[in-house]
Amino acid sequence: MPRRSRADSGVLPQPGEQTGETSGGSAPAEPELLHGVTAEPPNLEPEVAALDSFLTPAEVRFVRCHFEVPAIDLQGFALEVAGAVAHPLRLTLEDLRALPRRSVTVATECAGNSRVSLSPPPRGEPWAGGAVANAQWTGVPLTAVIDRCGLREDALELVFTGADQGLLPGGEQASYARSLPRSKAVEEDVLLALEMNGAELLPAHGAPLRLVVPGWYGMASVKWLQRIDAVAQPFAGWFQAERYLYVEYGAMAKVSRMRVKSMVTWPAAFAVLAPGPQRVRGFAWSGEGPIDKVEVAFEGGNDWREATLLDPQLPHAWRAWEIGWEPPAAGRYLLRSRATDARGNRQPAAPRWNEQGHGANAVQVVLVEVR
Amino acid sequence: MPRRSRADSGVLPQPGEQTGETSGGSAPAEPELLHGVTAEPPNLEPEVAALDSFLTPAEVRFVRCHFEVPAIDLQGFALEVAGAVAHPLRLTLEDLRALPRRSVTVATECAGNSRVSLSPPPRGEPWAGGAVANAQWTGVPLTAVIDRCGLREDALELVFTGADQGLLPGGEQASYARSLPRSKAVEEDVLLALEMNGAELLPAHGAPLRLVVPGWYGMASVKWLQRIDAVAQPFAGWFQAERYLYVEYGAMAKVSRMRVKSMVTWPAAFAVLAPGPQRVRGFAWSGEGPIDKVEVAFEGGNDWREATLLDPQLPHAWRAWEIGWEPPAAGRYLLRSRATDARGNRQPAAPRWNEQGHGANAVQVVLVEVR
Repeated sequence: MPRRSRADSGVLPQPGEQTGETSGGSAPAEPELLHGVTAEPPNLEPEVAALDSFLTPAEVRFVRCHFEVPAIDLQGFALEVAGAVAHPLRLTLEDLRALPRRSVTVATECAGNSRVSLSPPPRGEPWAGGAVANAQWTGVPLTAVIDRCGLREDALELVFTGADQGLLPGGEQASYARSLPRSKAVEEDVLLALEMNGAELLPAHGAPLRLVVPGWYGMASVKWLQRIDAVAQPFAGWFQAERYLYVEYGAMAKVSRMRVKSMVTWPAAFAVLAPGPQRVRGFAWSGEGPIDKVEVAFEGGNDWREATLLDPQLPHAWRAWEIGWEPPAAGRYLLRSRATDARGNRQPAAPRWNEQGHGANAVQVVLVEVR
Repeated sequence: MPRRSRADSGVLPQPGEQTGETSGGSAPAEPELLHGVTAEPPNLEPEVAALDSFLTPAEVRFVRCHFEVPAIDLQGFALEVAGAVAHPLRLTLEDLRALPRRSVTVATECAGNSRVSLSPPPRGEPWAGGAVANAQWTGVPLTAVIDRCGLREDALELVFTGADQGLLPGGEQASYARSLPRSKAVEEDVLLALEMNGAELLPAHGAPLRLVVPGWYGMASVKWLQRIDAVAQPFAGWFQAERYLYVEYGAMAKVSRMRVKSMVTWPAAFAVLAPGPQRVRGFAWSGEGPIDKVEVAFEGGNDWREATLLDPQLPHAWRAWEIGWEPPAAGRYLLRSRATDARGNRQPAAPRWNEQGHGANAVQVVLVEVR
């Protein structure tokens, strides 16, 4: 949706510039491919049409920060693992690099993505639809660390704490922290990621170490990870108990798995197309299961045609789709894609409103003109 | 919403080019200020930000055509008035110009305007929000013609028929025709308009003669008017009985008065603003009564501030409003305006869905970036 790019937040240095002693801080360059959603802390997203590749390049990946990007001393860095464990650990980057490695391709959407599509738009960062990305992550399976620390029997959840911190609305100082239930934490594809798309993480994406939780909205994939604490009680930190909740007319539920969703990445919104045959394409994803079907409509109303699903379905990646289309006449068209997952979840026509504006997975409309 | 303009539909000649013997047909030039909604017949609308003046210039006024723009022989032109009248009439343009004159400023919105904001978007021309305009019309009060023809006591409605005709979906040939109840037709501000904003009508806007019905959606203001028939039975033509209906979950009602609505005309959608004080402005209108209040929100959530209403309220015109705003920080903002009329009607947060997609008067969101 946004029409112009942003050039000055300084949180996305070129990969070559972040190899010094410190990650973050005065990182300089930034591509002009992202739009500022908030300036402080930096929250950035690309236009949906910039996401037109199976693996999302680092420079167009959305950036979600709850606090300023922390400056991290890479020499002194260590991941602490403590709490309800048999063997507390302290793992330097060198230690982590010596552990077993795994690569997983994961689609990750910000829980607040498409918040502006809700009527009325709730408070919160006004993400327009570009806060989703698909990347190949490489790092240490969380299970490898769990095997080494030994979870005690009373360990109910693992709490992941980032190096980013700041003031909560109430004035209290806090770090960003989120927990996973033990059952999720021991899944083999949950990663402590050191690399994205074959390159070191960028500061804006959580360097030097971040959690990657396949299938869940992005708030679970804690960036700048520096502590893991096994706890015997449900974690009740601000970002766990007060935020990332579906609050709907009094009812409340925690945000976790990504709702089924899809997007059109070509053509771009407001594109002007020449007459003739077109290939319309995009991606679909769900945290509940593989994508079963993507249908596309080209005008208002209910004429849906089934798109072709491309590539093999990787367990946690988004699924590419495409469909041929020949506009019958000059004029304006409304392109819409609608995904259904293997559990029968299907994108709703209208967004389901909730107070914090999470999980807005309604069918999106891309307006184009043929002339 | 549309980002690019359209240059080749040929329905909006410059005023100087339409003074020949024939109106319509091969009219050449067209400003690049309108976007094509459908090409055949021509339906065009400007971006909302192009509507940032109290009187909408002819070159940015939306064009709504049910059939192709008819070619009309101005020499042979006459308005026929017949049916349940005491004195059938045949009025040439010269006759009409000799009758009493009246000027009225009228806001007119297409009933399908903002159809694309409905979820899911219904079939029908995909108007994005620019199909509304405010103009000063000059012509003969319909009452002056009614006085001369003498409505019989059994005249229940007046049927207005345009010169535009074509095939209905069922294959039948039809002219565009709409009726008004007698009680509405005798209101003093209903006009047989010969001029818009002090100039002769353009072919696209109904030259040489059109009806202007203040307070009602645009379908009532029949263009290329050539017949008026007083009828003793409710008119049941296609555009009266099959279209311009609110069909909502089985219930049905006729589209008539414009629902209360407003729009932000500055800043434009997707504008990038420099920090510092801003004047946000726009217009509000209602077919139910004068505008009582316009409130504006600058972010998601429910912080509404009351805008200042400008100029005197003319009975049928839209109302200008403005409000000062200083963005607290760089970042993205969601500007929304919400109008309330003197009868207490207020724009809803979410659009009220109906099958044909009429009366979409929900609060609109203008996304801007400050940096």
